[in-house]
Amino acid sequence: MLSSETKDEIFDLIGQTVTPRLSDQLRFVLEIDKLKTIIRQTPLLDISRRENDAEHSWHLAMMAMMLAEYAAPDVRLERVLRMVLIHDIVEIDAGDTFLYDATAEAGQEEREQKAADRLFGLLPKEQAVEFRSLWDEFEAHQSPDARFARTMDRMQPFLHNVFTGGHSWKHHGVTADQVQKRMAVIADGSTLLHGLVTRLIEESVARGFLLPSSSD
Amino acid sequence: MLSSETKDEIFDLIGQTVTPRLSDQLRFVLEIDKLKTIIRQTPLLDISRRENDAEHSWHLAMMAMMLAEYAAPDVRLERVLRMVLIHDIVEIDAGDTFLYDATAEAGQEEREQKAADRLFGLLPKEQAVEFRSLWDEFEAHQSPDARFARTMDRMQPFLHNVFTGGHSWKHHGVTADQVQKRMAVIADGSTLLHGLVTRLIEESVARGFLLPSSSD
Ligand SMILES: [Ca+2]
Repeated sequence: MLSSETKDEIFDLIGQTVTPRLSDQLRFVLEIDKLKTIIRQTPLLDISRRENDAEHSWHLAMMAMMLAEYAAPDVRLERVLRMVLIHDIVEIDAGDTFLYDATAEAGQEEREQKAADRLFGLLPKEQAVEFRSLWDEFEAHQSPDARFARTMDRMQPFLHNVFTGGHSWKHHGVTADQVQKRMAVIADGSTLLHGLVTRLIEESVARGFLLPSSSD
Repeated sequence: MLSSETKDEIFDLIGQTVTPRLSDQLRFVLEIDKLKTIIRQTPLLDISRRENDAEHSWHLAMMAMMLAEYAAPDVRLERVLRMVLIHDIVEIDAGDTFLYDATAEAGQEEREQKAADRLFGLLPKEQAVEFRSLWDEFEAHQSPDARFARTMDRMQPFLHNVFTGGHSWKHHGVTADQVQKRMAVIADGSTLLHGLVTRLIEESVARGFLLPSSSD
């Protein structure tokens, strides 16, 4: 591995050869390589290991392209792609929080805001503002684009659970009502996909992939 | 892991609950999870392991977003994003070929064509045609969008080599003239970025990251 002094010398050389602007952009591009080391709860479908945030983000982008027809008519795919590609980069500093872990959620938002300041702050000013506001939009999940992006973000680990026989649901003792509650927001992005998820939750309980609702 | 019979039952259920079309789309979405297991020569920047094709594809999409201003004015970012996201999926069947390995190249194109037939063929007909033609366009590297996508695809492992002190160049005994030759196509996507790469090749030789040209 190169020392940070050597790396700084090379970034300086890039700044002198082209522009400081490009040097800053490449600092960001190389910093986010760390997203490949942030490990999620979701296993690969072959259960060989758990997936990381970078490959998860790629998978969401692929899903968004393939399933775009189920989004609201005013959804713009390019913005959805940009959102899902950047949505998790704050986890480089803030870490991944498991969807069914309520205690880890404490302090998560503050950590993620600080991470967004640092990471997007590596970019040239107007690009930092552009991508920070795109991330803020994703986090607020009010716009049609953000809602469809979040629908992808919820569906992907759900599908991995169904098609691994409930691998991480079983590991964490998750129940059907918990899944139903976490998947409710899918309806904001697509009622059709939410209908499918509801049916697959039933099927997962019937097949023993998922514990029945604790109230049942 | 679920048996393929059980998976087929669930895909059938999806087809009955919604449409066979959505079932086919999700078959594709889940099949491409395998891209996360296709390992490239390029190491992560922390050299903890080699990267896989899925996270590589995510990284190219991030680069394309951050560096879009260096592309030709007629380049459409959305198409570049789509291209870099799908460009490697044929390697699920055909495997990764190292850029500096001439012998492995034999038969690669035929393997990739067969892989494209099988993988895109999982999708509903008109979507299969759409994404297959996008991949063909990337492979032909004639259009401005395809050229910029290829520029990203060449620059990312190049930058990883520079910022790891030539990790995989050293491992494979690669020389400056080999790198210069492989990076020549970057100029088709951006002369500015090609100029930078040329300067960084010199610097990499000067710092001992890369062997000098064999003719030197
Ligand atoms: Ca996520």
